[in-house]
This record gives sequence, structure tokens and C-alpha cells, in this order.
Amino acid sequence: MPELRKDPITSRWVIIATERAARPSDYAVERELPRTHPCPLCPGNEAMTPPEVLAFREHGSSANAPGWWVRCVPNKFPALASGRPGRSGVGIYDAMNGVGRHEVIVESPDHDGNLATLDVEQIEEILWAYRDRHLRLADAEALRYVLIFKNHGRAAGATLEHPHSQLIATPIVPRAVAEKIDGAKAYYAFRERCVWCDVVAQDRADGARIVGENEQFVALAPFASRFPFETWVMPRSHRASYATIERAEIAQLASLLSIVMRRMHGALGDPPYNFLLQTAPLVFEQEREPYFHWHIEIVPRLTSIAGFEWGSGMYINPTVPEDAARILRETVA
Amino acid sequence: MPELRKDPITSRWVIIATERAARPSDYAVERELPRTHPCPLCPGNEAMTPPEVLAFREHGSSANAPGWWVRCVPNKFPALASGRPGRSGVGIYDAMNGVGRHEVIVESPDHDGNLATLDVEQIEEILWAYRDRHLRLADAEALRYVLIFKNHGRAAGATLEHPHSQLIATPIVPRAVAEKIDGAKAYYAFRERCVWCDVVAQDRADGARIVGENEQFVALAPFASRFPFETWVMPRSHRASYATIERAEIAQLASLLSIVMRRMHGALGDPPYNFLLQTAPLVFEQEREPYFHWHIEIVPRLTSIAGFEWGSGMYINPTVPEDAARILRETVA
Repeated sequence: MPELRKDPITSRWVIIATERAARPSDYAVERELPRTHPCPLCPGNEAMTPPEVLAFREHGSSANAPGWWVRCVPNKFPALASGRPGRSGVGIYDAMNGVGRHEVIVESPDHDGNLATLDVEQIEEILWAYRDRHLRLADAEALRYVLIFKNHGRAAGATLEHPHSQLIATPIVPRAVAEKIDGAKAYYAFRERCVWCDVVAQDRADGARIVGENEQFVALAPFASRFPFETWVMPRSHRASYATIERAEIAQLASLLSIVMRRMHGALGDPPYNFLLQTAPLVFEQEREPYFHWHIEIVPRLTSIAGFEWGSGMYINPTVPEDAARILRETVA
Repeated sequence: MPELRKDPITSRWVIIATERAARPSDYAVERELPRTHPCPLCPGNEAMTPPEVLAFREHGSSANAPGWWVRCVPNKFPALASGRPGRSGVGIYDAMNGVGRHEVIVESPDHDGNLATLDVEQIEEILWAYRDRHLRLADAEALRYVLIFKNHGRAAGATLEHPHSQLIATPIVPRAVAEKIDGAKAYYAFRERCVWCDVVAQDRADGARIVGENEQFVALAPFASRFPFETWVMPRSHRASYATIERAEIAQLASLLSIVMRRMHGALGDPPYNFLLQTAPLVFEQEREPYFHWHIEIVPRLTSIAGFEWGSGMYINPTVPEDAARILRETVA
């Protein structure tokens, strides 16, 4: 019989199809990547993007010219734009101006690099850029949240091949984050403990869902994984905001991320995936709330989202999370 | 500047990218359909499916043999199965047995038919089958909800070409429906009116978002459409449960659905889409609650769901709903 599992943070029920128990080879993974020539994110083509807002670059090199190893630019076709906040209503409907930021973080000058092949030092640099942009935007008026994410592969929504992340800052706390906050707050009210801290403690004691860990971080297959091989990476100790990350943590996070991505690459063959950094909201951050715990969600896109998922908000996961964790653990990275 | 719009039912904010204003031709629609030979849903191949649980068939024809025009069978690979309910907990985690039903409603003997080409009488028969299965399962122990949906085209998650809908009955009220109930209940508590009734009234008075209507039903592009050309079809008068639909309503619904699907077909060229019947939960139904209003959501799958959507729960819709409604209205059906 299939099993229904409840995510302890959001209370979302997921159907784990234990009997189908799909192995990596059961998924028809679309590996094709969109090709763009010339690539607007490659060194030498800096003029194809808006001027950079951040770049880690060689001493003496000029802005918007080669010499960078991480470069952050506004998105040429932004989903949200700079401007004056404004709210309005028409009858029963509410609207507001689409104020915000939409940026692209170019992760490497290497067009063919990705998180599974870049070296750990380069991943550290990407993680610093995430922190720097987050801190910078924390001061911006009218912004409530900074979401950093990554689409890798066409099936995950990537439209450019060159390795990059995106940042969208929104004038509201996005629904998915608000749901986690609400769930974590209710859990904290009941138990006076952070729910993610409890997840880390129980899963480390159990062991079956652990994908990898080091001194400060852990990677695990969540109990109620919505997607096959879904993996969360998070600090083992309580941290509400990614913006407070320190040097030693960056090094450990980069190291574990590299291992996780190489294991996914090894087990699933460069799968399309989404990478989501889930941190505390900007305003919230200053309160250093004891119940939000930042984490990264890595979601391979091996199954399709169809009518059942849209109509129910539930997911059918054909790979048992404990199997996914074991397969990833046993993959030589 | 883009516009943020809030759905009055779920309070979900959506980004309407007013400046990009994509036209139908801007979407690269994947029209390829999976081919299956032999087709397990075609007449003559009835032995390839589990025995039928419902069939509308010619007088004198045998069960599980040709002669049917609508046929409903259990899914051969069910997401949820018959069995004993059971709940369990392990530490902070909760689980329950995956009790439920998963059925396939074969919409026509014609392998190449679809809602845009089937005649209105055949669509009426499909709608009767939806009602009959819904009523039948309302009595089943441990079931709380019946979700009927349809995946058309590979990009919408279809794995069989033959026109069919699916039914999944769940032992919980699914999250997406519970969110609507909560939102509608809060709206009702505040205004003592059904929110969908208010949507119908305001949108009919305004006109800009109307796709089509007849005496008893209306089709509209919702104010905060998550997806380009998203369309809702619902009764103009308050009805909580689809299961109470009557003969005259079935005829009118079939007629409007046929027009809407032919317009989508004409404007978007046989787009992949999901079709979701959102009705009141089984238990809830008996209370005939004044705040839930059943509706059908038709969601063309023209854009991809990527990291931003997963991480935020928000959607970026590149087609203004009023433009989508106008384009569909102006398409000769």
C-alpha cells in the first residue's frame, strides 16, 4: 500500500508510492540544454547584459569587462522592477505595483561548468555573492524578501546554459515562505523547539535519510519528500538567516554542496533541478526569530507536475526517500 | 511596471508581467503526444485494463467489451489503493496508509478525440460519468475528497494519448482545496457572501475577463491568473457540490466547455492543459455550505514551473488576463 507522509513544517501530505519504488533508471530525464550563441553570460560579452551590480574580479580589471569569476547583473527581462510602491483595489480585487529586483548571478566564467564540476573554492565564491546581494538588498525600501534560486536544465526551466543563479526580491513575503513560517511558528508554540532543528536531530539519530554531513552542515532526504531525490542542505545548528553566514560555514557548506551535487550527477546523470535558498524574511531577520532555520532545497525535476498536483496541492513521489538517500550516499562523489 | 495581483479566494499573489505581454505565438508549445500501441483505452482492448466500474454502453453489450461510449476503470498503477485506514507516528513525523481510489474515465471510444473535437452530447456523457463516480464514492469509508482531473498533452503530464480523465479519491481534504475553503470561509465571515459569486458578479459587470457564458454558466480569465490563458468555468448561481448537478445544467455546461475548448484550440493550437474539477469535500457536502462554489479550472501549460515558483509559491504570468480573455472571445469556435 502507498504511504501518506506529512511534512512537519508545512503539514503538506505527500503520497509515497512505495510499491512502484522507482530507481534512477526509471526516470526519463531530459538532459538537453538550451544553447545560446553568443552567450550573454560569457566573458567578453559583458555588454550584452545590463551593467553589473556586483563582481568578484581580478585586481585592476574594469567593471563590465572580463577578469571576473562571479558576476551579478540585473535581469534584462525582469519579473519585478525598481519603482514606487503602490497599492490599489477594484471591487473585490487587490493589486500592487510590481516593485522588486530581479538579478542574475553568473556563477563562473566557464560556460560549461556546473555545481557538480566547479571546484569547491568557486562554489564558496558563489555562496559569498548570495550573501552579499542579500545583505545589500536588506536595506532597500519596500522589499520584504530575497529569494535566490537556480534552474538547471531545460526541464527545470533554464533558458540559458551558462551556469547562473537568479535573485528575485519581492515586496511581500512569498506564500511558500509564509507557509513555512506559520508552520514553524505553530510547532514552536507547541514544543518551544525549532522544527528544522528537530528534523536534523531525528534524522541524524535515525541515519536512513542522511545523504551526507560535515561538522556544521547536513544534507538529507526529507521524510515527506515531494519529489524523487529531493534533498535539503542546512546548518546543523540553528540559524534563521543566510545573511549571517560566516567564513568557516561558507567553506563547509561549499564542500557539502559539492559532494551532494556530484552524487546527484553520478546517480541521476546531470539531472535538471531547481535549487532554492529559503531564508528568513528581511524584516523578520532583525528579530532573529528562534523558529525559522534557513535551508537549501535541491529538487531534481524527474517527474511531471500534472492535474493531480495542481488540483490537490499534494505530490506523488515514486521513490521512497530512504531509498533515495541510500542511493545518493552509495554514489561515489 | 509589472503588476502584482491577489487572488481573492486563496490570497495568493501573482506577478502579471504587463510589459512583456506575451501573445499566443510567443509560447513554444510542445504539441507532441505520447503514442501507445496497442492503446489500452481503445475499444477491443478492454482486457488490458482492470474490470470497469462504470460504463455507458449499448443495450445488450457485455461488460469489458466494446459497445461503450464512456468507460471508467481502476488505474492499473494506482497512486492510492483500497485498504484499511491506519495512522502512525515516528518521532516528529506522521504517516497514514495510502487509502483511496485511482480511476481512469475513458472519455470516448475515439482514440483521436478531445474536448475541442468531441460533440456536445459526448461531453455531456463525460460530465454524467464525473457525477456518477462522485456520488458512488461519497459513500465509501475513509474517503474525504474526490478529485477529478485531466492531463492533456505531454507537457501537461499525459502518458496516454487516448482522451481520458482521472479520478483520485483521498483520505484527507487536499491542501489546495483546504486553502480555498479557508479563504472562502474567511471571505464569507467578513461579507456573508460567497467569494465566487462575487467574482461572477463583478466580472460579468466588468466584461473584460469574460471568455464566454450562457444562461447558467460562465467562463472567465481569473483576475490573478497564475498561468497564461488560465480559464475558470463555473455555475453562475451558487452551487457547493458538483454532485448535485442536474440535467439542464449538464447540457449547458457541456455546451460552454465545448466552446471554451474550441477557442483554446483555435487560439493556442491544441495546447497541453490540465483540467481540474474543484468541488466541495464529501463530508462537507452534506452541510451544503454557503461559501464553497464548485468550479472547473482549465490551465494551459505554456510556461514552465521553475525555481521561483517552487521557492515562492508565486507565479509569473506573461499574458495579462484581460488580453487572454479578449483573444479567446475573438477566436471563432
